[in-house]
Amino acid sequence: MERAYEQFEALQRRVMALQAALTLFEWDAETQAPTGGAERHAELVSTLSGEYFRLLNSEELRAALSAAQAETLTEAEALKCRELQRELEKLDGIEPADYEAFSGLRAKSVSVWMKARQTDDFSLFAPYLEQLLAFQRKFAGLRRKSQACLYDVLLADYEPDFSVVQLDAFFAELKAALVPLLKRIQTEGRAVDSSFLRGDFPQERQEALGRRLAAYIGFDFERGVLAVSEHPFTTNLHNRDVRLTSHYRDNLDSSLFSVLHEAGHGIYEQGISDELTLSFAGQGASMGMHESQSRFYENLIGRSRAFWEPLYGELQASFPEQLGSRSLDEFIEAINEVKAGLIRIESDELSYSLHILIRYELEKALMAGELSVSELPKRWADKYEEYLGLRPQTMAEGVLQDIHWAWGEFGYFPSYALGSAFGAQLLHAMRQRMDVDMLLREGRLDELRRCLNEAIHCHGKRYTSAELLERFCGEAFTPVYYVNYLTDKFSALYGLEK
Amino acid sequence: MERAYEQFEALQRRVMALQAALTLFEWDAETQAPTGGAERHAELVSTLSGEYFRLLNSEELRAALSAAQAETLTEAEALKCRELQRELEKLDGIEPADYEAFSGLRAKSVSVWMKARQTDDFSLFAPYLEQLLAFQRKFAGLRRKSQACLYDVLLADYEPDFSVVQLDAFFAELKAALVPLLKRIQTEGRAVDSSFLRGDFPQERQEALGRRLAAYIGFDFERGVLAVSEHPFTTNLHNRDVRLTSHYRDNLDSSLFSVLHEAGHGIYEQGISDELTLSFAGQGASMGMHESQSRFYENLIGRSRAFWEPLYGELQASFPEQLGSRSLDEFIEAINEVKAGLIRIESDELSYSLHILIRYELEKALMAGELSVSELPKRWADKYEEYLGLRPQTMAEGVLQDIHWAWGEFGYFPSYALGSAFGAQLLHAMRQRMDVDMLLREGRLDELRRCLNEAIHCHGKRYTSAELLERFCGEAFTPVYYVNYLTDKFSALYGLEK
Repeated sequence: MERAYEQFEALQRRVMALQAALTLFEWDAETQAPTGGAERHAELVSTLSGEYFRLLNSEELRAALSAAQAETLTEAEALKCRELQRELEKLDGIEPADYEAFSGLRAKSVSVWMKARQTDDFSLFAPYLEQLLAFQRKFAGLRRKSQACLYDVLLADYEPDFSVVQLDAFFAELKAALVPLLKRIQTEGRAVDSSFLRGDFPQERQEALGRRLAAYIGFDFERGVLAVSEHPFTTNLHNRDVRLTSHYRDNLDSSLFSVLHEAGHGIYEQGISDELTLSFAGQGASMGMHESQSRFYENLIGRSRAFWEPLYGELQASFPEQLGSRSLDEFIEAINEVKAGLIRIESDELSYSLHILIRYELEKALMAGELSVSELPKRWADKYEEYLGLRPQTMAEGVLQDIHWAWGEFGYFPSYALGSAFGAQLLHAMRQRMDVDMLLREGRLDELRRCLNEAIHCHGKRYTSAELLERFCGEAFTPVYYVNYLTDKFSALYGLEK
Repeated sequence: MERAYEQFEALQRRVMALQAALTLFEWDAETQAPTGGAERHAELVSTLSGEYFRLLNSEELRAALSAAQAETLTEAEALKCRELQRELEKLDGIEPADYEAFSGLRAKSVSVWMKARQTDDFSLFAPYLEQLLAFQRKFAGLRRKSQACLYDVLLADYEPDFSVVQLDAFFAELKAALVPLLKRIQTEGRAVDSSFLRGDFPQERQEALGRRLAAYIGFDFERGVLAVSEHPFTTNLHNRDVRLTSHYRDNLDSSLFSVLHEAGHGIYEQGISDELTLSFAGQGASMGMHESQSRFYENLIGRSRAFWEPLYGELQASFPEQLGSRSLDEFIEAINEVKAGLIRIESDELSYSLHILIRYELEKALMAGELSVSELPKRWADKYEEYLGLRPQTMAEGVLQDIHWAWGEFGYFPSYALGSAFGAQLLHAMRQRMDVDMLLREGRLDELRRCLNEAIHCHGKRYTSAELLERFCGEAFTPVYYVNYLTDKFSALYGLEK
């Protein structure tokens, strides 16, 4: 007799095929699709999303899940059931009509946000932001199980182990260490010359180099591609089809490090085990853990001297005019320049977390009803002035710079900062086991990738990020390694006394 | 109260969204997808096909269709209902299990065919071909309504007005005129030099030129793209998202004319009216009519002197080394060289229909049970010797050259020849209304496109190809214009007396 699990698996396969189709449409829109089809494209995506939710939310699937869970399952099977159940729980209590209205609102909001950003007019976007917030507060209220605050419900979608209590403590530590460090660099630090990273870098050579770097750190081009899009991103259909994009501008470091960043995400996705891919368990443990891998490659090792030692000659040969007369040390200094700015995605490694801190504090206040949408632009500007010493002069370089809120996503931002801290803690633990700098100098990147594969990637959602850290590092999460890493690195670079 | 039609429309939209997803997967596989994902990709496509057929074949859709057809409908609504009904009729009587087995067999057959072609071993493919034929004969038997022969049932899927009776007459005329003409050229014709079309043509310049030519004849890049794939093809998600591919080799004419060919298909798809797109009525009238448009641009005008007059200087400037010293007349002769060969897709314009004639005669005999699969390679070779004066020495250049039979498609080939004949008849009728050569010389391609848009493209499947010809040309289909066109053109080119 057929096991009930097989029936569940067949239904799950249909859900995942629809999800893969949606992913492909999204990828295609960013990389190939003609502009004139955008409106009809949105209708197709909306119809396919309907198919996806209809099946995911069907009685048939819920019944198959229950029946499967009543059987004896392998560990991987049980895991897939658990994660699908969690996905269903996110929909619990939410009226399909509300969900559809929210989806429609999101699509609309993104285009309004774009227009508001172009015309620098927050008032266009404000009513949409209010509605998006109202929906998310309503959904969070329906989904809230315990006495958690509304924001906690949303945070848990991205990072189950980190609610407001943990994040308050985390960000307090960052703030205490990084705000003064940044101020010291701004006032006492010596000058760094990064001007040679700007200039005329032919796109083909940047792209060839990006491809080389991605392959160098372990991204497998048999199971992945690199394309061009307006903003770099990574997506995947499954573990054998992982897709990166980059963009190529007049600043070389932008493409170098965005390829390393996206390839870090891609290596994670390629590392998820075959038995878990194409299920809800076959995804990164959390957004923060995903970000830890991208930032590991982009920053923690990617901006280190040891990483570039075996590569810098090649880089110079690609761009002899700009780099031929620059030493490796000059290059390392330039790619690590601290230059606090108003734009998160252009931020240096040190001030990055402060951009996130600001968004965290604002989201928390918005969700708690302590901050109104109309007060948001001023509060945003005040915080930038306080933490980074800069005040935005336009909405586009201020509150309208990120797309996330237009997507209706609140609670996502903290993952970016957590990811950096996870990465630093993982690197610290790796250093206990292997000579990381030697491996980098010898170009043995595969050994690092294999270590991360085994510790993190292959498990998908088997463990939470806190569990993964505990297992690999032998201790609970702590931001101390991240703070120490930043403090040591940038104090040295800028000649600050401890 | 909501009209029943609205419910039908909503279901149809879901079917079409799934179809668009399948199209996108296919496009992606040919243009971007990483090779290592192919197997899982096939599983996803198979699952999505299942979704598509489940919905298309659902009681819900059939009931909604009947209810809608009982209402007062607009002309376009009635048309969409009619075409969906025809789609359903194709499935009538076929067991879902048989259909699935056939789909699985097709997928398998393609990879076996590839292997057989590589190893030049027909015996690998033969058992698959036998099974594919058996399925199609069974399906045709179930679907057959009148005393039509089995092959007629399949032919009607591609070209409803042309059954064996009509095609026998059509091909008899072609054979009577073209076989002797080709023999005369082979024995009496003067030599044509096309050697300068082979050489080192940088891909970027070929691609830029292809883009320029496609736009020149009226393909709208706001609503379409041109990418690279192994074999050129055209596909579309809807009328605002039409996708062409080309390939770039060392023979310039191959990319020039394949872009013109594919852009001709693309112009057809872009011309289908908004009210019909994303429905079964929103597709080309028939495969033959589609092919008439691609061949109109590729051959009927694309290989004419008037077409190249305003363009040739530009072409020379793109490739000064190869074309700088060649006159327009030399170029026109070279691109029209008759060189009977064994490979259909490399064929010149004159011998093309003879390749199709051979396939038609073989398919007809196979479906009628008059020819066995084991006898096929010899029969193929005999016919090539008889009609083209050449005998294939390998299976790869003989019976294994086309993918169509591996797809389980029998009855498709005649469309290629019909398309050329439709195109010639349309061009003849156009010449009665406008000075086509003057428009070409003045680069007024838009006027030709608009004429075809109104007469053919916008209607989708509103009329059959025979009806479209009758409406535009004021007479029934006849191959006489095609035969005359080929005879006049190639007699002149090769200096043959009439």
